[in-house]
Amino acid sequence: MEKKQVKVGLLGLGTVGTGVARILEMHQDDLLKQTSVEIKIAKVLVSDLQKKRSIELDADLFTLSAADIIEDPEIDIVIELIGGIEPTKQYILDALDRGKHVITANKDLMALHGTEILAKAAEKGCDVYYEASVAGGIPILRALVDGFSSDRIHKMIGIVNGTTNYILTKMSQEGAQYEDVLKEAQELGYAEADPTADVEGFDAARKMAILSNLGFKVDFDLNHVDVRGMSNVTAEDIAYGKKLGYVIKLLGIAQRDEGCIEVSVQPTMIHRKHPLASVNGVFNAVYVYGAAVGETMFYGPGAGELPTATAVTSDLVTVVKNMKLGISGKSVVAPYRETILKTPEQIESKFFLRLLVSDQPGVLAEITTRLASYDISIEQIIQQPNRDHAEAEIILITHMASKKGMDQILTELTTIEAVKEIKSYYRVEGLEDK
Amino acid sequence: MEKKQVKVGLLGLGTVGTGVARILEMHQDDLLKQTSVEIKIAKVLVSDLQKKRSIELDADLFTLSAADIIEDPEIDIVIELIGGIEPTKQYILDALDRGKHVITANKDLMALHGTEILAKAAEKGCDVYYEASVAGGIPILRALVDGFSSDRIHKMIGIVNGTTNYILTKMSQEGAQYEDVLKEAQELGYAEADPTADVEGFDAARKMAILSNLGFKVDFDLNHVDVRGMSNVTAEDIAYGKKLGYVIKLLGIAQRDEGCIEVSVQPTMIHRKHPLASVNGVFNAVYVYGAAVGETMFYGPGAGELPTATAVTSDLVTVVKNMKLGISGKSVVAPYRETILKTPEQIESKFFLRLLVSDQPGVLAEITTRLASYDISIEQIIQQPNRDHAEAEIILITHMASKKGMDQILTELTTIEAVKEIKSYYRVEGLEDK
Repeated sequence: MEKKQVKVGLLGLGTVGTGVARILEMHQDDLLKQTSVEIKIAKVLVSDLQKKRSIELDADLFTLSAADIIEDPEIDIVIELIGGIEPTKQYILDALDRGKHVITANKDLMALHGTEILAKAAEKGCDVYYEASVAGGIPILRALVDGFSSDRIHKMIGIVNGTTNYILTKMSQEGAQYEDVLKEAQELGYAEADPTADVEGFDAARKMAILSNLGFKVDFDLNHVDVRGMSNVTAEDIAYGKKLGYVIKLLGIAQRDEGCIEVSVQPTMIHRKHPLASVNGVFNAVYVYGAAVGETMFYGPGAGELPTATAVTSDLVTVVKNMKLGISGKSVVAPYRETILKTPEQIESKFFLRLLVSDQPGVLAEITTRLASYDISIEQIIQQPNRDHAEAEIILITHMASKKGMDQILTELTTIEAVKEIKSYYRVEGLEDK
Repeated sequence: MEKKQVKVGLLGLGTVGTGVARILEMHQDDLLKQTSVEIKIAKVLVSDLQKKRSIELDADLFTLSAADIIEDPEIDIVIELIGGIEPTKQYILDALDRGKHVITANKDLMALHGTEILAKAAEKGCDVYYEASVAGGIPILRALVDGFSSDRIHKMIGIVNGTTNYILTKMSQEGAQYEDVLKEAQELGYAEADPTADVEGFDAARKMAILSNLGFKVDFDLNHVDVRGMSNVTAEDIAYGKKLGYVIKLLGIAQRDEGCIEVSVQPTMIHRKHPLASVNGVFNAVYVYGAAVGETMFYGPGAGELPTATAVTSDLVTVVKNMKLGISGKSVVAPYRETILKTPEQIESKFFLRLLVSDQPGVLAEITTRLASYDISIEQIIQQPNRDHAEAEIILITHMASKKGMDQILTELTTIEAVKEIKSYYRVEGLEDK
């Protein structure tokens, strides 16, 4: 490449877009040293030309029309930071059609339409990078693609949603209930007014789909992520977990055994000595298990203006280097494994189960017998009478059991007269990858 | 590149070499899918042709002569796993001279002669990769070079020596003394018969020099790493640290402030809530502070056959991809910053200090006054009489103070009659990067 200057079009100038402009300004000497090319923001799509902004950018750069960027032959690279599926997807496809490289932080789009977008990029010889779409500033996608290229990854556990991790951390530290902490998080700006995508696990599911694609080299359908939100987690569950040596986190779990894959998001009891148990507040982390490398963890800020922007801008450096080296569009490894989903019999883990029962002789025996009939044996159990001794709580953690067996026992328990209520149940992750 | 096969020469078939051969065998389908090239071990330098080995390799591959590999025009890539400086350095330079790409896990060589080797590689258009030289299976060098390419890293703290971390973890968990745990570690094979390089911090120093070069984009002289070993750490220091909320770890600390750099290795008290405080046993971790990204951590196995081998083999995949793309030797960013060392006045941290003093009135006042005269103020202090009340221990943690001030006060304290002994002192790292 002869160019001494690369022109970038920014679609969107919200938090992350502002951060990108700021980093390009702050670190321009370093970027020039590394790429030998001046990276220049040539145009910025905004929705309001008059809006006061926290950075100074030449007013001439702003446009209200995406076409001004996508159709500008001088623009080499488009950075998409609008979010959402439409019209964003079309913008990206159009930009690729015109030979522009694309960087995006859009997890929804990459989880749902990543394959189509990457195929178009390959066809056009263009780069598409999206490090910022998962776990903000943590360079986890690069690690999966390059760092572990020679290994075979069989499990990834992610704390990939900062909002829910903040809420669960606060609940755990203060013994507070979900609703109270959510309200506080909303006031602090850590949770959206409508927190559904975060607390119901949808945001984490998209990130786990992206991690699964890159880690397992498959084309995983987002609809196959088994998602359970964390809005029903109670202070009592957290307290019982603590008693048994566990911490509740909203975990994304992607696992591949004998060629079959499960991907899920759910509130999970994780052993307090597991490194993920100490990932607190808005921090994110991805724990990776590889056949050769063993266990590794990548920890850092999952959101925020500059952390996310640094992921975008590092992608930008890569795209510029690829242009210089003449290898644009050539770094992608297409998925080469078929996605075979695990059956519910094949999905195995330990489980936590908390029951309200009549405090009468024989109840415990009946429950453990029923569990045993589904091949579910018990690792730890606490029985605790309520104050009036009419009812008791039984809290137990099973040994490894199949999801199918657990689903069946949960149904069957509701038919037992002495079982007044299934208070809660959680997947349990231990220290060992077993 | 037209080639359908790439030939690799292995210099050394110890633990890591065996692991590389094993991974190439186990994951050959994946490697072929990713590179479209068959990676074949063509020759292996060994010191004993008859030795029984834990893997099956064709006996024809073995040679006793490095020249058989370095001078073989059919060999494209040399993987150096002998270790040490000579004759290894010459082997690598000779291989580069003949246009071969080089992968090495040799931290000593890269810390001491990395610049010379990388310059030769650039001259010859060859790749040199050395991910396995720091923190075994953790892809930290890639993260510094690529993942944070757009950021400005100002601090890295590493637990980069598994042996000493194992010893300190055991001492901390069991209240045991250094000598006892070292002996146990030696019996388990976690420590060498001669543990000097590990326990005196030299091994960690080499890794910190490599991290500094890549993180700060400098050419840092290994001799400028300020090294203090951990063989004087006592169970009592660990217990006092715990009381004050700290854990003792052998930390490598590389810091760059206003263009000036300090790099050190020393036993350090780190706040128990800092993520590094929970990195236990033989695990390694590198904590990276970037201007934009904030705080991130990379955690994983620092040694071992397969973890280290996976780093080597992932480098191999990169080298093969670069050959295919025709960009060999073009990925290195040469150091572009001058190394300016901090003066002892500029090196600042908190300190832990433990003194044995006469248990008489006015001693505490005298010590705090002396500290204040060097602008050292106190954050936490414990005074504890010995059983006979003739002597007392004073344990304190300072606010931020300069290394120069601390060195001076340590000398001055020995001149005070009431100070019987300076039992110990440690650098202290808090939760915030301040």
